Amino acid sequence: MTMDTQQSGFIINMYIAAWQLQNKRFAELLEKLTDEQLDAETAPGRNTGTYLLGHMVAVSDAMLKLMGFREKIYPELEEVFIKSPDKSGKARPSAQDLRKYYHEVTNELNGFIDTLSPDEWLDRHMAVSEEDFAKEPMRNKLNILISRTTHMANHQGQMLFLQK
Amino acid sequence: MTMDTQQSGFIINMYIAAWQLQNKRFAELLEKLTDEQLDAETAPGRNTGTYLLGHMVAVSDAMLKLMGFREKIYPELEEVFIKSPDKSGKARPSAQDLRKYYHEVTNELNGFIDTLSPDEWLDRHMAVSEEDFAKEPMRNKLNILISRTTHMANHQGQMLFLQK
Repeated sequence: MTMDTQQSGFIINMYIAAWQLQNKRFAELLEKLTDEQLDAETAPGRNTGTYLLGHMVAVSDAMLKLMGFREKIYPELEEVFIKSPDKSGKARPSAQDLRKYYHEVTNELNGFIDTLSPDEWLDRHMAVSEEDFAKEPMRNKLNILISRTTHMANHQGQMLFLQK
Repeated sequence: MTMDTQQSGFIINMYIAAWQLQNKRFAELLEKLTDEQLDAETAPGRNTGTYLLGHMVAVSDAMLKLMGFREKIYPELEEVFIKSPDKSGKARPSAQDLRKYYHEVTNELNGFIDTLSPDEWLDRHMAVSEEDFAKEPMRNKLNILISRTTHMANHQGQMLFLQK
């Protein structure tokens, strides 16, 4: 491994650290919130904490497939927590179950994340064709990690309002 | 320039793109909000939009210094928007002025950001000593950009609640 390949790996590890820090903060917030607090709205008329928790699980679960690691663990969550808004009336898991799913999906994802080489991080993700990727090389696996980190930070800001 | 130095530059540019996308979204949200909406609380008893806007300006202004580019443009904002909570009663600029400051500080920052080489991105930021940096090489300028991007995403999520 050359010094410069080491440099690429170092920079990628900084992004992985940012993803893991965001997930650590999210897990810490979940620990502080009761199931009753999660079931409440983040602000009047806005999404509940439970919906946003389910949304986070569904988005992280989709990363498993999008990054080429494996099939989703809970594919049924997409319909309820991504395609449908909160209060859709569709049956959904409890806050208690979603907490477990969050940790299960995150641990599964982080296990795969630790195995990628810099070149693999810069390879295309599964929702872009080879042809489009040749024109837009930033549509790679690393970009999924970056965009999902800011996405989680965005919703975490809202979920902070669930605290007393 | 070797292929691998190019690779480091490419990976860093992905992160600069994430920072710029976050700022673009923030600017778009500001466009949608009236000054009256900014002056309202994001949720009952929580920070106002104007406070969070001032907080964003103060944090980005501090990046100018922390990343070694130049002195702050509005150093007085730190006391009101970082050291003090909202509703501190301290005199502060209007929402209208803070909009201008936001664009001014962001443009200044992005001008400098475009000039850094990969090695400069990986050099220490100004709040860490050379001795500590030797032990913790991730405390570099790139890390400031990464952490400020998720910080802004976090507060943007809250400011979305200001919209009707």
